[in-house]
Amino acid sequence: MIRVGIVGYGNLGRSVKKGIDAISDMEVAGIFSRRKLDIDLYRPLENINEYKDQIDLLILCGSSDKDILSQGPELLKSFNTLDSFDNHAKIKDYFHEMDNIGKENGNLALISTGWDPGLFSLNRIIGQAVLPDGKYFTLWGKGVSQGHSAAVRSIDGVLDATQYTIPKPEILDKIRKDEEFDFDSHKAHLREVYAVVEDGADRKIIEEKIKTMPDYFAPYETFVHFISQEDLDKNHKKMVHGGHVIRRGKASGEGNALMEFNLDLESNPDFTAAVDIAYARALYRLAKEGKKGAITVLDVAPKYLSEESYDSLLNFI
Amino acid sequence: MIRVGIVGYGNLGRSVKKGIDAISDMEVAGIFSRRKLDIDLYRPLENINEYKDQIDLLILCGSSDKDILSQGPELLKSFNTLDSFDNHAKIKDYFHEMDNIGKENGNLALISTGWDPGLFSLNRIIGQAVLPDGKYFTLWGKGVSQGHSAAVRSIDGVLDATQYTIPKPEILDKIRKDEEFDFDSHKAHLREVYAVVEDGADRKIIEEKIKTMPDYFAPYETFVHFISQEDLDKNHKKMVHGGHVIRRGKASGEGNALMEFNLDLESNPDFTAAVDIAYARALYRLAKEGKKGAITVLDVAPKYLSEESYDSLLNFI
Repeated sequence: MIRVGIVGYGNLGRSVKKGIDAISDMEVAGIFSRRKLDIDLYRPLENINEYKDQIDLLILCGSSDKDILSQGPELLKSFNTLDSFDNHAKIKDYFHEMDNIGKENGNLALISTGWDPGLFSLNRIIGQAVLPDGKYFTLWGKGVSQGHSAAVRSIDGVLDATQYTIPKPEILDKIRKDEEFDFDSHKAHLREVYAVVEDGADRKIIEEKIKTMPDYFAPYETFVHFISQEDLDKNHKKMVHGGHVIRRGKASGEGNALMEFNLDLESNPDFTAAVDIAYARALYRLAKEGKKGAITVLDVAPKYLSEESYDSLLNFI
Repeated sequence: MIRVGIVGYGNLGRSVKKGIDAISDMEVAGIFSRRKLDIDLYRPLENINEYKDQIDLLILCGSSDKDILSQGPELLKSFNTLDSFDNHAKIKDYFHEMDNIGKENGNLALISTGWDPGLFSLNRIIGQAVLPDGKYFTLWGKGVSQGHSAAVRSIDGVLDATQYTIPKPEILDKIRKDEEFDFDSHKAHLREVYAVVEDGADRKIIEEKIKTMPDYFAPYETFVHFISQEDLDKNHKKMVHGGHVIRRGKASGEGNALMEFNLDLESNPDFTAAVDIAYARALYRLAKEGKKGAITVLDVAPKYLSEESYDSLLNFI
């Protein structure tokens, strides 16, 4: 049994708990949080070092910038850690910091897994290796963006809102058909907002405020729908997500080739957790083999991800 | 420079040669064949052991059952080898045979890479690991099947023919929409034949012979088109191929998730060669690290596939 500590108990932490409960080779050894939780297995985060002997690895489920950047380096001193750190601009620095701490303390960190970064990274890297003479395209959605939904909710008169990021079908079509065009991530996605507003609020003004919000919406084609709270609760509260990683290039210098990896997810946290759990298995096994420092999806051979034996995995070859 | 020997110089061998010529960290050290070839770098296969010191690894480009099953075990005694052995039913036995020979002789074999087996295997295995509570579907095409094309050409009165295997769009649709149905690989694909026949041949009889050919066509929905040799040469001589690996399941025991990997290839051998070359780089590096025996795509961490440095690959995370 691989004994897992969960650090942070928001959406991702709850999905990790469900995911581990659904498989047979792992168990949750503790759920660690700064705020007191009224659940089985809750332990105060400040006492985590007392549980060192009962835990093989921690899955860090807090937010990237606010929690993981500080918790990762601290917890790696005493534990093996896995995280879904997703601030792409900071991954390289975070990797090297964790690599040093892991080596100094004899522990192993697997950073930035999940689906993007994670499985999408894997597909970008394999695409680059197989078709070095090529281009890659990452598109996200249809998916709910929590940040953009919160930005809409911050506008005066808005009571609740959900924002979807959607890749434009005509852009996907151009990529797949190998048409020449300037790919621009802003122009490749549209944003769709479902907002509940106060009675008597000026919808024209709110729509204008949303569409002109810098960074969040201004560079995008944005559609705003005003709906009732009931409708929003019923139809727009699932954390759906997904996306596409596409590599297009010349195979062996000649034959055009298209490689495409697509995800369509009913629940972003459930799927991120599912990937984290498979990589947690790999982390456990690589740590057992004596590996120390920091690793990413780049370092993990597929056989480490599955509960199945090597011989049984040969059936999938 | 990684010095590669190519064994067998049919379609795949020629694509491997082109692919290595297009990159900067590998070179072709010899092209080995039983039959005499009028090309640079040709060496008689029977003399291959004389070139042992000039070669880091061999890529075996012969056919699975006729060539690789005998050549692999023999050549692994003196060389590291990579192959695209694709007889799924025999892979497990072949793996264990090669593993023993590699260990006895201090060499490393990477078997059964390419796209299926190879990248498709990878996606089946990652899908299984991330969504253990799920089902997988492999569909092939649109692609030319050499075996089926040859079967059509063997019919009296047929001068030339190309056969395409095509996944039925309505089956892909059902899989993606998570509809319940009995998946049957025979019923999930249709076969389309373009045939050139002798003047005065009875097309009705030929069509009937094709459609009722046991194993090859009888269990499938088959469409036959009679065209001119000119049309066939112009429009149906490319070795296009591709396909889909789809995993559908419950993420973390709950959220429905769909993972899909698609290939659309202008040239089957060019792409198989491109994958072989990336995995040849991995074979070389793992052999340098002292690994011996046999390995598959299961054993290869993604970082080994690319010419880029680890730090530069972190940009793709």
